[in-house]
Amino acid sequence: MMTREQYIESLRKLNLNVYMFGEKVANPVDDPMISPSMNSVAETYAAAEMPEYEELMTVTSSLTGEKINRFTHLHQSTEDLINKVKMQRLLGQRTASCFQRCVGLDAANAIYSTAYEIDQARGTNYLENFTNYWKRIQTEDLTVDGAMTDPKGDRSLSPSAQPDPDVYLRVVERRDDGVVVRGAKMHQTGMINSHEVVVMPTISLRPEDKDYAICFGIPTDSEGILIVYGRQSCDTRKLEDDADIDLGNKHYGGHETLVIFDDVFVPNHLIFMDGEAEFAGMMVERFAGYHRQSYGGCKVGVGDVLIGAAALASEYNGVPKASHVKDKIIEMTHLNETLYACGIACSSQGTKLPAGNYMIDLLLANVCKQNVTRFPYEIARLAEDIAGGVMVTMPAASDLRHQKIGPYIEKYMKAAAPSAEARMRIMRLIENITLGTAAVGYRTESMHGAGSPQAQRIMISRQSDLPAKVKCAKRIAGIKE
Amino acid sequence: MMTREQYIESLRKLNLNVYMFGEKVANPVDDPMISPSMNSVAETYAAAEMPEYEELMTVTSSLTGEKINRFTHLHQSTEDLINKVKMQRLLGQRTASCFQRCVGLDAANAIYSTAYEIDQARGTNYLENFTNYWKRIQTEDLTVDGAMTDPKGDRSLSPSAQPDPDVYLRVVERRDDGVVVRGAKMHQTGMINSHEVVVMPTISLRPEDKDYAICFGIPTDSEGILIVYGRQSCDTRKLEDDADIDLGNKHYGGHETLVIFDDVFVPNHLIFMDGEAEFAGMMVERFAGYHRQSYGGCKVGVGDVLIGAAALASEYNGVPKASHVKDKIIEMTHLNETLYACGIACSSQGTKLPAGNYMIDLLLANVCKQNVTRFPYEIARLAEDIAGGVMVTMPAASDLRHQKIGPYIEKYMKAAAPSAEARMRIMRLIENITLGTAAVGYRTESMHGAGSPQAQRIMISRQSDLPAKVKCAKRIAGIKE
Amino acid sequence: MMTREQYIESLRKLNLNVYMFGEKVANPVDDPMISPSMNSVAETYAAAEMPEYEELMTVTSSLTGEKINRFTHLHQSTEDLINKVKMQRLLGQRTASCFQRCVGLDAANAIYSTAYEIDQARGTNYLENFTNYWKRIQTEDLTVDGAMTDPKGDRSLSPSAQPDPDVYLRVVERRDDGVVVRGAKMHQTGMINSHEVVVMPTISLRPEDKDYAICFGIPTDSEGILIVYGRQSCDTRKLEDDADIDLGNKHYGGHETLVIFDDVFVPNHLIFMDGEAEFAGMMVERFAGYHRQSYGGCKVGVGDVLIGAAALASEYNGVPKASHVKDKIIEMTHLNETLYACGIACSSQGTKLPAGNYMIDLLLANVCKQNVTRFPYEIARLAEDIAGGVMVTMPAASDLRHQKIGPYIEKYMKAAAPSAEARMRIMRLIENITLGTAAVGYRTESMHGAGSPQAQRIMISRQSDLPAKVKCAKRIAGIKE
Amino acid sequence: MMTREQYIESLRKLNLNVYMFGEKVANPVDDPMISPSMNSVAETYAAAEMPEYEELMTVTSSLTGEKINRFTHLHQSTEDLINKVKMQRLLGQRTASCFQRCVGLDAANAIYSTAYEIDQARGTNYLENFTNYWKRIQTEDLTVDGAMTDPKGDRSLSPSAQPDPDVYLRVVERRDDGVVVRGAKMHQTGMINSHEVVVMPTISLRPEDKDYAICFGIPTDSEGILIVYGRQSCDTRKLEDDADIDLGNKHYGGHETLVIFDDVFVPNHLIFMDGEAEFAGMMVERFAGYHRQSYGGCKVGVGDVLIGAAALASEYNGVPKASHVKDKIIEMTHLNETLYACGIACSSQGTKLPAGNYMIDLLLANVCKQNVTRFPYEIARLAEDIAGGVMVTMPAASDLRHQKIGPYIEKYMKAAAPSAEARMRIMRLIENITLGTAAVGYRTESMHGAGSPQAQRIMISRQSDLPAKVKCAKRIAGIKE
Repeated sequence: MMTREQYIESLRKLNLNVYMFGEKVANPVDDPMISPSMNSVAETYAAAEMPEYEELMTVTSSLTGEKINRFTHLHQSTEDLINKVKMQRLLGQRTASCFQRCVGLDAANAIYSTAYEIDQARGTNYLENFTNYWKRIQTEDLTVDGAMTDPKGDRSLSPSAQPDPDVYLRVVERRDDGVVVRGAKMHQTGMINSHEVVVMPTISLRPEDKDYAICFGIPTDSEGILIVYGRQSCDTRKLEDDADIDLGNKHYGGHETLVIFDDVFVPNHLIFMDGEAEFAGMMVERFAGYHRQSYGGCKVGVGDVLIGAAALASEYNGVPKASHVKDKIIEMTHLNETLYACGIACSSQGTKLPAGNYMIDLLLANVCKQNVTRFPYEIARLAEDIAGGVMVTMPAASDLRHQKIGPYIEKYMKAAAPSAEARMRIMRLIENITLGTAAVGYRTESMHGAGSPQAQRIMISRQSDLPAKVKCAKRIAGIKE
Repeated sequence: MMTREQYIESLRKLNLNVYMFGEKVANPVDDPMISPSMNSVAETYAAAEMPEYEELMTVTSSLTGEKINRFTHLHQSTEDLINKVKMQRLLGQRTASCFQRCVGLDAANAIYSTAYEIDQARGTNYLENFTNYWKRIQTEDLTVDGAMTDPKGDRSLSPSAQPDPDVYLRVVERRDDGVVVRGAKMHQTGMINSHEVVVMPTISLRPEDKDYAICFGIPTDSEGILIVYGRQSCDTRKLEDDADIDLGNKHYGGHETLVIFDDVFVPNHLIFMDGEAEFAGMMVERFAGYHRQSYGGCKVGVGDVLIGAAALASEYNGVPKASHVKDKIIEMTHLNETLYACGIACSSQGTKLPAGNYMIDLLLANVCKQNVTRFPYEIARLAEDIAGGVMVTMPAASDLRHQKIGPYIEKYMKAAAPSAEARMRIMRLIENITLGTAAVGYRTESMHGAGSPQAQRIMISRQSDLPAKVKCAKRIAGIKE
Repeated sequence: MMTREQYIESLRKLNLNVYMFGEKVANPVDDPMISPSMNSVAETYAAAEMPEYEELMTVTSSLTGEKINRFTHLHQSTEDLINKVKMQRLLGQRTASCFQRCVGLDAANAIYSTAYEIDQARGTNYLENFTNYWKRIQTEDLTVDGAMTDPKGDRSLSPSAQPDPDVYLRVVERRDDGVVVRGAKMHQTGMINSHEVVVMPTISLRPEDKDYAICFGIPTDSEGILIVYGRQSCDTRKLEDDADIDLGNKHYGGHETLVIFDDVFVPNHLIFMDGEAEFAGMMVERFAGYHRQSYGGCKVGVGDVLIGAAALASEYNGVPKASHVKDKIIEMTHLNETLYACGIACSSQGTKLPAGNYMIDLLLANVCKQNVTRFPYEIARLAEDIAGGVMVTMPAASDLRHQKIGPYIEKYMKAAAPSAEARMRIMRLIENITLGTAAVGYRTESMHGAGSPQAQRIMISRQSDLPAKVKCAKRIAGIKE
Repeated sequence: MMTREQYIESLRKLNLNVYMFGEKVANPVDDPMISPSMNSVAETYAAAEMPEYEELMTVTSSLTGEKINRFTHLHQSTEDLINKVKMQRLLGQRTASCFQRCVGLDAANAIYSTAYEIDQARGTNYLENFTNYWKRIQTEDLTVDGAMTDPKGDRSLSPSAQPDPDVYLRVVERRDDGVVVRGAKMHQTGMINSHEVVVMPTISLRPEDKDYAICFGIPTDSEGILIVYGRQSCDTRKLEDDADIDLGNKHYGGHETLVIFDDVFVPNHLIFMDGEAEFAGMMVERFAGYHRQSYGGCKVGVGDVLIGAAALASEYNGVPKASHVKDKIIEMTHLNETLYACGIACSSQGTKLPAGNYMIDLLLANVCKQNVTRFPYEIARLAEDIAGGVMVTMPAASDLRHQKIGPYIEKYMKAAAPSAEARMRIMRLIENITLGTAAVGYRTESMHGAGSPQAQRIMISRQSDLPAKVKCAKRIAGIKE
């Protein structure tokens, strides 16, 4: 397993093709816009080195028998599924951000199990390809981006019926040694901090879409891959002298990218699906299911930090004992723990897949994510309530250090805090999570990550076994017709 | 284990002292006001006889090694805790009512574990008393009422400081062979259908309240016990000729009673706590914890019936495919499954108590119950939305059979249903759960059972480890002061 | 204007054809099942006699120049519209029920204005018919039922395409002196307490449905009208000896009926629309609009009683100063006043119709009603929270008077109330509004009266002028395409 | 009245003492960080010049009889109060921001009426002072900041008991010709765009706090006033080359400041209260009341833009007809119009104050603001739902223009929009209002402006006349005790 430092060094060796603000980025690892997100991923390595977290962060590989980072594990039990959620909550608490590494983990479990079932049905050899690939990921302790969402173009048309056939990623050329793919994947979280990327289809496919039924894994710096860094609220505060205070969370962050596959070659041994359109839906549903479980962990961890920050803010504001403040903290906790309960429940009710790894309960995982599209917003609202207006009307940290006006700010901004700076720091952290860089992760990604709310509603509808409920009702009501 | 029939026969042997509507009830078993609630309890016996539910409904006793009904089990694992919730959901689906038998189960697990800890601390012999008592319960497969809530009088005063010392149940006399108790227990669910009642204190107690620190189990027809049947919405529809249709749920129901202990003698061997005031809080907290878990099962089962009924109502109304109707069914399902997730999660995260039986996770169980004080109300509101106004404007079933007006009602009330009667039946079932007899269980008891919402909020606050969250926030914000 | 007593006497002269529980009702006025609802209507007469309410309850007729009850007024200003809402709130406070008389008022304003516009477009004479009719209503101070909702049959088909053409009320025969109609009207609130009924179409109609485009007013005891009384939760408590206590609201109530028009003759001078299908939508929209405004008054008044009851319950329970109780009372008040604000706003923004009477603002009236489908449910939930479980577990009043058990009930049920009876009375009132007879009005009718929630959403969508908002957004975003 | 251009020129003549990011700002008018907020205020002048808005934006002064901008008007009727709300909604639609000028308007109406009542009670001459002052404001058409919120220090102590007496603004010296004040005012919206500032106390005061009972108006560039600019989310995007696209709303914005009064001299004729502590509460309550009304206008206007933006985003995403999208737009509209209804209702129910100007209904204004602390958050959440994840993962505008990657972005980001740029613009506008600079106004100020939620709850409690409601409940329940 890699240490935190080894991980960072390993990234330096990548020759990524990254664009940001209209320019090519020479050195992503040291770029102040990108590095906080790298620190979040690095925390998944650092925590694995800490004795107190060893049991949660590491596990014995089902593929190699070696001790691996849990972020690369194929789940072997419901306990593994539960531990995944607990690990994610821990990382959320430690980064107050999106730590990005879950996507590859969720992709691996989805691809592994689907590859097995394709092989069973079609006599293909995808499981071996994937197993060999993933053994290397586990052994080298790599970070893997999971790429699913295509640009989609005209949403009323299937992939092969699009005016521009590239708006869904597809095979454009077949060679003896592999395939060439073209297209793009949107919302790629953590791509720049990843060694590898595994690409999956984004929707259920029909036979005529078989060129779109392609799944593979390749290095992130493969020829033809272009990465465009996405803007986030308050992103450039990272570049400011006073980022330490004004950013709210100096060390950790997340990032999102648009990844363009401009005729990228994929060798045969890295292909895990190619043309089996009828299995695309299974892979998507499993990936989405695992990823909807994930939110019952990571967002809860960020919620913990926000609750802690709100409690501290109330203390610094001088009103920690007001009954309405205490009640709001309780409500935040209640909502946050409800999310956690959903994450735990869908794990606890997981079942073994034919391939041998464990799948979460689909209905409960979708219920989990659906709540995640709501409660973090209410938790954030309550945090803004407790913080007070000062969160958005405060001067910059540089004003606090100004010879003339600094003393006034210290005098008038301190309230019940040990210092005006302490109060500014906690306010900026709340701002960071509710409006700033981390709000992208805590709010918008809670909404859209792993599928938009409507996607979960469709799955809830499908999984709810309504006929069985109607039967119960008829029995009670005495309806025999 | 008793069969359903044996259970009913066994109740006939009880000589209960029941009052209802200002009169003594000669034969509770055959009383049409009471018997639907008896049928609900009887279903816990009937289901245990059914092969398809055997695994869920029965379990091997940790006390006797015999196969017992799970409603009498001391939980030996988190799997047992999860199975309890699943069993409760099943019974909720089969009765659409409160089936009453959980209270004794939850009391048993709380008393058993507390008795053990009292014995450890005080050298008493309560565990043996309780174990002997409970072995008999398991072997004879009895139904046990768990009695906790006292009338409370002036809520600003402790029990011993009340103007009327009886408003909390207490020991009024000590004899060599036992004690005499006086007081009352409110909200006694299922008392008339129970063979035994176990009595517990209702709050944490201080040394001066030690006469109130009394826990015991006795037959429900013990000398001095008076039971007063509580009224429920629409209760007298049970007496009507057309109860089959107009009641909405002819077979099943619940009941609530006020139980008066008018100087009741309790022999020494049935006493499980007497005077150990400092352990009262532990017993209350554990009972409440188990019972808050329970609601993540039983109310979910009733919710299943209500969702099924709403879906059928939409079909009978002729609008099952309207997108807003489908969306409301999804929302009902989402909320219902969120409750279930909380019930499962607090079970999955349970831990072994010193006595050896398993305790649910207290924080998550309180979160579970807190959601139960909200979501069934919203599910009921959505059901009323889907049902339509006809639910509360329909004629009586007797009008449907009337020679002159019956044909008009058939003509104008049928809509898309197979018959006007079928439509009336499903509407009356929804009425039953949202406004009628079962609304007492599905709404008000969801609110107040196992403690009112504020009781859960206090527990959530206590269990939330706010300082750890503040520490996380300080670390992220860089606050060292 | 009639006094309360004259009103009741006037009802005795009606020869209504009422069925209830499978039997014909000989004397509706004195029937204990019906009379509480009559008392609610009677309160609209009684309040008009009281000097303190004279200004609100009476107004000068625009048709006759005489002083009339505002419940028969054609609104002449936005002040009139606002006063209507205030009058409704007052009556809600005085009856804690549906007082039924608004429907006719809302129908009159819709028919008057539509009749005018039909005449203008078609050269018909409906305005004169209606004006003559309504002058008599005003002068004789009659109560008028407004009948709109048809059974509807298969909702995917238009009226004339139904397998059974009678599921929408229609003209089945035309004579020189009038027409004969057949069909039924559902959910007829207060029909039995009304002297007259005005019938309107229930949806927008197309030319082929012109036999369904019929509007008229006739006496409620006209030949061929059959009225079937609808059941309500807890209805038969009205028949019990202890109705005074156990019913919760002995004096006031509402009722709903199914009204069958079995080939009823309507003379020409009482017809206000006949065949002008293209005006059906206008009439429906206006009636619904006025009636959606109404709910911003009447339900607020009932809410006032429920808030007062909850406050008193908290006092009787001994916890009026608990911060969470006070906060819940505030929340109930906040929600209730939000409804009132919507009722006032849609009135304040009313506009003059071509006929001269005033119309409410349609968008805001629909917003008002949409909130009414939500907030009373939450207010009721909070009331149940404050009341406590005792609301649904209490013995009957007859137990309180029982020689043996009565003293126990007094002892254990009194809590901080002046007497157990006082506590039972306030609990039963809360039960009445949240689960009992008045729950039909406060909950289900809040949901479905004046159109189900989805009906309001469609109107909100139509009235929201989305293109203007898109234009604002484009201007701000600098989008010129 | 000033034109938009004259207003901007007039600001250039001010010699303001502004600090931002640790430096003194030489020229606030042309500073790109400040000027968008100036444009918002300027729009209050521009709109008054537009014939289509003349009736709404201008009015005849009650003081001078001249035509004035309504932003300087003393309300003379409920129609004036309603027109104020409509004017605010218009400006919200035109700026999608806080346009800042309401504070002075609300302060003027509060001070005018309070000054009158102080004079009546104390024989002082404040009304004349204020009238003279305000005639000049009206005639010269000035923008006035209203300053209320003090830093407050230890919230458990009254102003005069604070360790640092300056944490509430106070008189530190009295001279023959005036007074000297010291302290600070927080959250000063629009200070830098204002010609004058009127200062009021922030809470009810007791006799010992009379040095804090000070109210006056002075130029914003008075000697001793220091203004420190507050940071906002995404503020520095205003400095970027691509602000036109990436900022989301290039032209308009708001700003907040901390204003320090470092021994500022106030001449006698500009003092409107000095020492009449018992009137501080009246002034605060009235200002807060007017300002809580204001939010029922301005935030609704911003909401209109956000609804329009979401609708356009759904079109550009290619899913404008999905039923769930349409339903979310309806919900946003419903919530937004509920806020408007509250703004209208509290205006419609306004009453004449002793001074002759009109006051809003206090209960309904507090209900209005309480809803504003909730619904904009839900509207924002729904907008984020409709926008999709692309809102926070999109590249910068500079990437779109990049020679190499620009074409890829055009290809993959366009979806159903006329161009990728158009889609980016609408997404950035939604980001601006939900996460960016305008989120400060639309979210946090909706929460805390005019008092935090708890402040409204206290007022709702005070204004709700609970005893009258209890009386209603007792009458219905038949409780005579």
